Amino acid sequence: MSGSFPMYGIKTNHRVCRKEESMNLILLSGGSGTRLWPLSNEVRSKQFIKLFKTKDGSRESMLQRVCRQISELGSDVAITVATSKAQVSAIHNQLGDRVSICAEPCRKDTFAAITLAAAFLHDVKKVPLHETVVFCPVDPYVESDYFKELRELHGLAEKGGANLSLLGIEPTYPSEKYGYIIPKDKKRVSTVLSFKEKPGAAQAKLYIGQGALWNAGVFAFQLGYILEKAGSLAAYTNYWDLYANYGALKENSFDYMIAEKEKHMQVMRFVGKWKDVGTWNTLTDTMDEEIVGNAVMDGMCKNVHIVNELDIPVLCMGLENAVISAGPDGILAADKERSSYMKPFIDQMKQQVMYAEKSWGTYHVLDVEQESLTIKVTLNAGEKMNYHSHGRRKEAWVVIAGSGKAVMDGIERHICAGDILVIRAGCRHMVAAETELKIIEVQIGKEISVRDKQKYPEEV
Amino acid sequence: MSGSFPMYGIKTNHRVCRKEESMNLILLSGGSGTRLWPLSNEVRSKQFIKLFKTKDGSRESMLQRVCRQISELGSDVAITVATSKAQVSAIHNQLGDRVSICAEPCRKDTFAAITLAAAFLHDVKKVPLHETVVFCPVDPYVESDYFKELRELHGLAEKGGANLSLLGIEPTYPSEKYGYIIPKDKKRVSTVLSFKEKPGAAQAKLYIGQGALWNAGVFAFQLGYILEKAGSLAAYTNYWDLYANYGALKENSFDYMIAEKEKHMQVMRFVGKWKDVGTWNTLTDTMDEEIVGNAVMDGMCKNVHIVNELDIPVLCMGLENAVISAGPDGILAADKERSSYMKPFIDQMKQQVMYAEKSWGTYHVLDVEQESLTIKVTLNAGEKMNYHSHGRRKEAWVVIAGSGKAVMDGIERHICAGDILVIRAGCRHMVAAETELKIIEVQIGKEISVRDKQKYPEEV
Repeated sequence: MSGSFPMYGIKTNHRVCRKEESMNLILLSGGSGTRLWPLSNEVRSKQFIKLFKTKDGSRESMLQRVCRQISELGSDVAITVATSKAQVSAIHNQLGDRVSICAEPCRKDTFAAITLAAAFLHDVKKVPLHETVVFCPVDPYVESDYFKELRELHGLAEKGGANLSLLGIEPTYPSEKYGYIIPKDKKRVSTVLSFKEKPGAAQAKLYIGQGALWNAGVFAFQLGYILEKAGSLAAYTNYWDLYANYGALKENSFDYMIAEKEKHMQVMRFVGKWKDVGTWNTLTDTMDEEIVGNAVMDGMCKNVHIVNELDIPVLCMGLENAVISAGPDGILAADKERSSYMKPFIDQMKQQVMYAEKSWGTYHVLDVEQESLTIKVTLNAGEKMNYHSHGRRKEAWVVIAGSGKAVMDGIERHICAGDILVIRAGCRHMVAAETELKIIEVQIGKEISVRDKQKYPEEV
Repeated sequence: MSGSFPMYGIKTNHRVCRKEESMNLILLSGGSGTRLWPLSNEVRSKQFIKLFKTKDGSRESMLQRVCRQISELGSDVAITVATSKAQVSAIHNQLGDRVSICAEPCRKDTFAAITLAAAFLHDVKKVPLHETVVFCPVDPYVESDYFKELRELHGLAEKGGANLSLLGIEPTYPSEKYGYIIPKDKKRVSTVLSFKEKPGAAQAKLYIGQGALWNAGVFAFQLGYILEKAGSLAAYTNYWDLYANYGALKENSFDYMIAEKEKHMQVMRFVGKWKDVGTWNTLTDTMDEEIVGNAVMDGMCKNVHIVNELDIPVLCMGLENAVISAGPDGILAADKERSSYMKPFIDQMKQQVMYAEKSWGTYHVLDVEQESLTIKVTLNAGEKMNYHSHGRRKEAWVVIAGSGKAVMDGIERHICAGDILVIRAGCRHMVAAETELKIIEVQIGKEISVRDKQKYPEEV
């Protein structure tokens, strides 16, 4: 159970200093998520959309579902979410303080993200280099048996039989979007003969004929393994240094950079329910309900799913194999299979983000004019905005629900529904919610921009 | 050209007192229009939706198109629009003062509407009883040859060869929604043997076998004819009396009440382009463009039409024979043929009207909360609101574009973009637009209702 650990020149005896069953699990929360437009956008990835019914009848997101499933494994699993800066607010909002967050300063694909998260674990969370960690995508649709197997994979990787341990999925068709793992044998755990990331369909078919498995995107290894690999590719001293020089890291996937090249890998077959819900076609397959939100369909609809986040109703009649989704960013009406090819269409839209979930609540753009922007801001109870000012716009705030306090140029006042605040350009202001606070904010000015914001230290 | 006119006991020589070619044409603008939801609603019927491309590239509504076509016939056609109170603003807004409007105090089907319009023509517009008038639905999709034929029908009816003159359309299938006219012969103008309103499909098939024509909904007759008929069914003395007692009139269609019973009818065959655009299926058939509004479709879409009145984009992929329509009231995604059966679904929605066109401009509901309502009001240049107050709500007005003046409790002030007005409950107020004025209005109160409005005489 102990051994020579060549990386970083450290000798390890890795089970001595730790509680028997504890595990560091890193959830990779990535993706700008255009493939689930209009519900996903630059700041709101698919893992944050609340589509899954819970036992109490409310709905949870993929992220919340996965974290709930992991927590059901036991409280000794420490979750770190590796993500981008843009997602930090949404993660805090959905999970509170239950997880650590390692945020990339910019998007750099999975090799860099995993390296940064590894350095974060080591330098910030003080996880020893010899400790085995499990990286796992946040977006597979799975049951709790999956996370039990991750724990098993963790134990397996800890034994040191390979540098890198993978989870293999029985392929159902020669998909071009997965990595293919060729195992040595058909046993539950096998040495990996080779790994090929995203082959063409013909090649994938050949691999499947050779008994290949899909790579589930799960990687288990000792922390020092990746830090040493990364250290040989880019010079850095610790997490903070890596963070500061993150832009210089190579932008490529972990699969190409590491998995394809590693000689000592093992794979564990997972035979439970596993679905990659990256597209509407696959996502709707996992939904318990045909309709989420305000919608009606007639009896002639077959295999239709409607997800409506708008206040206005959707009526669907006589369609087959279709997905209808409406949100503040737009409306999709598509054949389910065709919807998988939406990316270029979304890219060409280049539209303003109309809705966002923040750590403090949400905002929703209600109206856009040449020289005005009307938004609805919902501030969760107990939350507050930064103290800030705008140089080139005036704002009118109309409190429509809840209560709290506002500070304007240092003067504090209590606010509640019906109050109207006029914030001239240059006025320092903030709001704090006592109860959930809803505000209609009308911004007026010749140059309205999210960049026109000056922050100040806390006033109160 | 003259003759004994039994109705009202009047002897007529009906071409003496009139300009040779002048004609009174009454457009029947009816319908709550749920079959074109979400673009039509209680206050916005299909004839007001701007879907048809004009020569200059802008778009016109069915109503505007029909009136333009009629005006191209010559300036001697006097148009009266027979409609409901709810449509008066929209008609003024789209047509200005070019037409007379006869508004029913409540909906009572076509018999009552035609009777009221006839009384309006006689008592308000002083049209003599012996004069021939032509009633015509506002919503057939036709070319200008249709209106030339209406003039011909008018001339034919004037000759007095029948009490009631109809326009017949060659049927294309045994529809259950039209009246069937059985002509005596196949000549262009024929005596009518019988008329049967909306038979079942089997009966319609039999009629078609007998050479029947569809009734186009056009009725030409001398004004006294219907007034005498109506007088025998309900006691009234003139237009104002009829208006005051309108609720007592029988609610039935002109077709059942009059056309089915009339023995002396003639029909003129119309062979030009004629389409009843009462459903999405038929309406999209007349559209020159596949897309109206902000929308994109992929190359796999076949026979798809998108009409989007919202600011957010619509993406449609891989659908066939479908119509997608989005407006402030909701979103439709439907097989074109199935969409004809939407009425019961719309009726069950019972939703707040989110958008309306008024004589002074438009309003658009942006947000609805328990105790607040946020709307965007656009007041056309030169227009103004009534002077009014609300007893149980406060309003915040934020001017986001344009300029004008506001009066609050008798005090006048100039307003422009950036101004914020707070109108407490009970405060008398009005706004007048110099240039097009856009206002975000936030209503706040425990009981927000359109009925909470007290009007006052003009203050300024």
